[in-house]
Amino acid sequence: MTVRSGHIKGKLVQVRFEPDDIEIHVKVGTTLSDAAISAGCAVETPCGGMGTCGKCRVFVTDGVSAPDESEKRLLGDLIAEGVRLACRARVTADTVVNIPEASRSLVQKILCSGMVRQVTPESNIHKYYVEAPEPTLLDERAEFERIADSINLRPGELQIDVNLARKLSSTLRDSNYKVTAVIAGSHLLAIEPGDTTAQKFGVAFDLGSTTIVGYLLDLNTGHDMAVASSANPQMAYGDDLISRINFASTQSNGLEMLTHAASDAMNRIVKQLCASAGINANHIYETTVVGNSCMTHLLLGIDPTSLGQSPYVPTICKEMTVRAPEVGLKINSSGLVHVLPNVAGFVGSDLVAVLLASMWEDDGRTRLAVDIGTNGEMALRHAGRTLACSAAAGPAFEGARIGCGMRGGPGAIDSVRIGEEVVISTIDNKKARGLCGSGLVDAVAEMLNAGIVDEMGRLLEPDEIPSLSPSVHERLVMEDDGPRFVLAEAKRSATGKPIVLTQRDIRQLQLAKGSIRAAIQTLLKVAGAEESDLSELLLAGAFGNYIRKESAVRIGLCPDIPIEKITSVGNAAGTGAKLALLSVKERGLARKLAESTEHIELANHPDYQNEFMEMMLFPQQIVTG
Amino acid sequence: MTVRSGHIKGKLVQVRFEPDDIEIHVKVGTTLSDAAISAGCAVETPCGGMGTCGKCRVFVTDGVSAPDESEKRLLGDLIAEGVRLACRARVTADTVVNIPEASRSLVQKILCSGMVRQVTPESNIHKYYVEAPEPTLLDERAEFERIADSINLRPGELQIDVNLARKLSSTLRDSNYKVTAVIAGSHLLAIEPGDTTAQKFGVAFDLGSTTIVGYLLDLNTGHDMAVASSANPQMAYGDDLISRINFASTQSNGLEMLTHAASDAMNRIVKQLCASAGINANHIYETTVVGNSCMTHLLLGIDPTSLGQSPYVPTICKEMTVRAPEVGLKINSSGLVHVLPNVAGFVGSDLVAVLLASMWEDDGRTRLAVDIGTNGEMALRHAGRTLACSAAAGPAFEGARIGCGMRGGPGAIDSVRIGEEVVISTIDNKKARGLCGSGLVDAVAEMLNAGIVDEMGRLLEPDEIPSLSPSVHERLVMEDDGPRFVLAEAKRSATGKPIVLTQRDIRQLQLAKGSIRAAIQTLLKVAGAEESDLSELLLAGAFGNYIRKESAVRIGLCPDIPIEKITSVGNAAGTGAKLALLSVKERGLARKLAESTEHIELANHPDYQNEFMEMMLFPQQIVTG
Repeated sequence: MTVRSGHIKGKLVQVRFEPDDIEIHVKVGTTLSDAAISAGCAVETPCGGMGTCGKCRVFVTDGVSAPDESEKRLLGDLIAEGVRLACRARVTADTVVNIPEASRSLVQKILCSGMVRQVTPESNIHKYYVEAPEPTLLDERAEFERIADSINLRPGELQIDVNLARKLSSTLRDSNYKVTAVIAGSHLLAIEPGDTTAQKFGVAFDLGSTTIVGYLLDLNTGHDMAVASSANPQMAYGDDLISRINFASTQSNGLEMLTHAASDAMNRIVKQLCASAGINANHIYETTVVGNSCMTHLLLGIDPTSLGQSPYVPTICKEMTVRAPEVGLKINSSGLVHVLPNVAGFVGSDLVAVLLASMWEDDGRTRLAVDIGTNGEMALRHAGRTLACSAAAGPAFEGARIGCGMRGGPGAIDSVRIGEEVVISTIDNKKARGLCGSGLVDAVAEMLNAGIVDEMGRLLEPDEIPSLSPSVHERLVMEDDGPRFVLAEAKRSATGKPIVLTQRDIRQLQLAKGSIRAAIQTLLKVAGAEESDLSELLLAGAFGNYIRKESAVRIGLCPDIPIEKITSVGNAAGTGAKLALLSVKERGLARKLAESTEHIELANHPDYQNEFMEMMLFPQQIVTG
Repeated sequence: MTVRSGHIKGKLVQVRFEPDDIEIHVKVGTTLSDAAISAGCAVETPCGGMGTCGKCRVFVTDGVSAPDESEKRLLGDLIAEGVRLACRARVTADTVVNIPEASRSLVQKILCSGMVRQVTPESNIHKYYVEAPEPTLLDERAEFERIADSINLRPGELQIDVNLARKLSSTLRDSNYKVTAVIAGSHLLAIEPGDTTAQKFGVAFDLGSTTIVGYLLDLNTGHDMAVASSANPQMAYGDDLISRINFASTQSNGLEMLTHAASDAMNRIVKQLCASAGINANHIYETTVVGNSCMTHLLLGIDPTSLGQSPYVPTICKEMTVRAPEVGLKINSSGLVHVLPNVAGFVGSDLVAVLLASMWEDDGRTRLAVDIGTNGEMALRHAGRTLACSAAAGPAFEGARIGCGMRGGPGAIDSVRIGEEVVISTIDNKKARGLCGSGLVDAVAEMLNAGIVDEMGRLLEPDEIPSLSPSVHERLVMEDDGPRFVLAEAKRSATGKPIVLTQRDIRQLQLAKGSIRAAIQTLLKVAGAEESDLSELLLAGAFGNYIRKESAVRIGLCPDIPIEKITSVGNAAGTGAKLALLSVKERGLARKLAESTEHIELANHPDYQNEFMEMMLFPQQIVTG
């Protein structure tokens, strides 16, 4: 027998689930469905636990509350045989519950931070196929009330928009009252002819300032259906956020242009997703969106001016749900766009999504998640608190402001080894075209190890370091404006010009990594934690995924902790968006994470500038992970 | 001392209100504000009892619950001096409460069914003037959260539409964060620069198929500001409902044309109301609308086809609230249009409003309210049940299908006396132009009394009734197609032609009054009541207001009950719309009335046709009221 228990206060009783043979302790009053979730053997609750669908049937004879009205209506005589609805029956004493196979929930396994997380699909979108009786003189209920009754909801519990009401009657008549009702929360979103319950899809969007990624999910099963991405066409109006904010604030129609650029790209992604999964966009009823506050403000058409000037406040932090047409998104015309909550002006819903995907529960350990992009956003969990901040790293890690820098793509040098010779590798093994973020970190780490760059960040001149192997030494060349280090000679370069690193490039890297590391140190200090307290450091995002951890530690971007404590978690923001799409419980968790996370404003913090000055330097000791 | 008590179950305690010296008994756990309302000395709760405005301060020292967080925050040290918030403090034991003048609620006296009804203005619309702190690096709350905090609401308790969010930041900045927040329920509707709390208006609409009336109310004080009306321009597309439904169903854009016709007329009324009260339409935040189901469906743009064919079901019965622009109404662009609930296809929100204005509580008496228009809608309250039905009277009472018929207006004959001579009066004492509904009823009642019409409805020929006084006898003239009775000779008529009543006219009246009276009899029968059980018969609407009660009884339109039990209640539907606008409690009452009213479908009822055949006849006995 497996015994699981949680940290629950109040009077506890024991519930054993059969045939799983799992025992847990829960508070008196807990529903059997919640208890089953805690036990890891969740039951189906397609109606969201409202006691209306009757799908969560379990066998239990005692230790539970008396049957309520919903159970009497839906189960009738079955109650005498020990059948109960898990969403209605509440635990009153120690008991044993048998969950039949038909009531078992589909549990979706999602890879989160290298861990498999079990998520029960509990979409915000519910579909009910209804064969309603046609109106007669003896049954004159209104069309809307007829549908509400057919899905066992009181009309007062269901809202309908006037747009849907306008065509409700003709839709019902044309379908002979055999329709599928699509409901989100208490809102009737749509009425579709026939039985469309099998088609229920959603898209989770990671709305990055550089790249937009969309994940198509089957909301019934939780399965991944397709993924597609697109460059963010807002790049044309500025490659950093401040430029886009200025564009929106100062250009006539600037905001509208940026909003349309984002929604156009998202619509292209929706088209691709539909084509590759073979589904109809009308069957996409909800999207979740995560991104930094500026990106989500622009998508929603909210004036971002206040984000562009001190004190950088957003218009809104809380989550927002709008209808798809309000932001020009071409999914079901009644579909919803749910933008996850922000923490503060530059700590957006993307970081909340990272938290949801990687640090969704407080396991007591000190953990740090860092998502490096143009801004480095990070969150530290320590001693019951979650602190977050955003450091303006600048675009060096994305290859910008580096002489030979480029984004990660074919031909980008992504790793560098300096031994007797200089060995590079490029993405897709193409001829080198430039240096991407991970290559830059790798190159400088190796140059530090080889003594070509000193702790102050100075690129040595060739005659200062005659001890280098000849093959490496010849790559350190002196030009009029100072030394440079050749990573790829002109003949091996796709551009015909050598790929080099200059003193200026190294200074850019120092600024970028210094700002991020100083932010980490400031968070640790505010939390009263030491680097050595860190049980885990999670690197999120594309850059965090490709970076060599040893090099990140060598240049001092990451604290000097054992390498095995550093984990690359991929696009954790996208995973968080998927979780919030798949389950309203996860969405609630995101809300709580956003509300409970304390924003640390680095500009306010007296130590940040000092830390920054110090952390621009490179660590003196060579560290081996 | 006045002692009042209600019908309250559960453990009761005594609360005395000072200086009013009123004692009531309430259940333990009742808030002081609810107790004060029951005692008839309501306190101000502009925040709707959410514990956020702090205006409902009362003095009380014991017998109440401990101060909650809202009270601690808003009252601080005052709590030690015995000050409490009436909306938060709950009665725990016998107690004495002192209500200072500043906390007293404005109570509006509204004439309902001849009774003065005290209604406390408790609008759905709340306005809060806020001087929010401007953002600084030490106070980086988002703009929305800043406003929510300033009105003591958690951001999670307040919803904002994306349209408002789009301009929120610039509005706040342009107003130096001195703004008025307009809130409906949990929705932030608008943010206005400066303090506009004094400007809070609403319009109650009675959307009749013939006439539309709008009442402008001050939502702060409950005062009437202005009234205006307009003919319903939908008349151009059909003067009865079935014609309009056909027009909407069969003409291209027919529905849109009817919707626009209604909203255009309502907009003209709004303009008139604003001009006459000297207010700005942007300060109208809510309207309530009552009307028959067809009229409200057309206003909302809901396809009315199903209302036009058996079994005549509406698309929706429950109340609907939409944004003003969704129905083209030109009030505040975020303003709300609240359409009261229907009971059934032809028992609309206008009858619900009549109930709200005239039979809002069950006082145990058997009462009947009848609203006569093209349809006669009526509700009977008897032995704890409320039954309603709609009888297709046809337009005879509105002057249509009567040879010399006309609507009530200047020159319409509105009363007739037949003694030695025939004496008529006309509206505005103009030369006679025709006969309106009340004149028709009066004329036929007098002709029955004079023996010119018999109980079967036959108009006697001149030689059958030689006993008439010569002056009356000469008005009964024989034409080729039968006899006719001259009410006004050609020389006294504005049209130059005599105003006459023919046999055909009398048959039309018999059909109209028969259908209404048969409906009354059917309701009584279904309820198990007798005519003699009726304590009160309320006649609502313009026709009900002008009709002579004795004549209504004489022709058998009304049951033969003492005249003093019959009351004309004027535009009770409009009064109901005003009540629902003024107070969310009244709106809740309307909802309950609509839900608890049983619709009796006359077409289904086996007795209705028999009653109709019988009730087309005129009573045999001359009745004197």
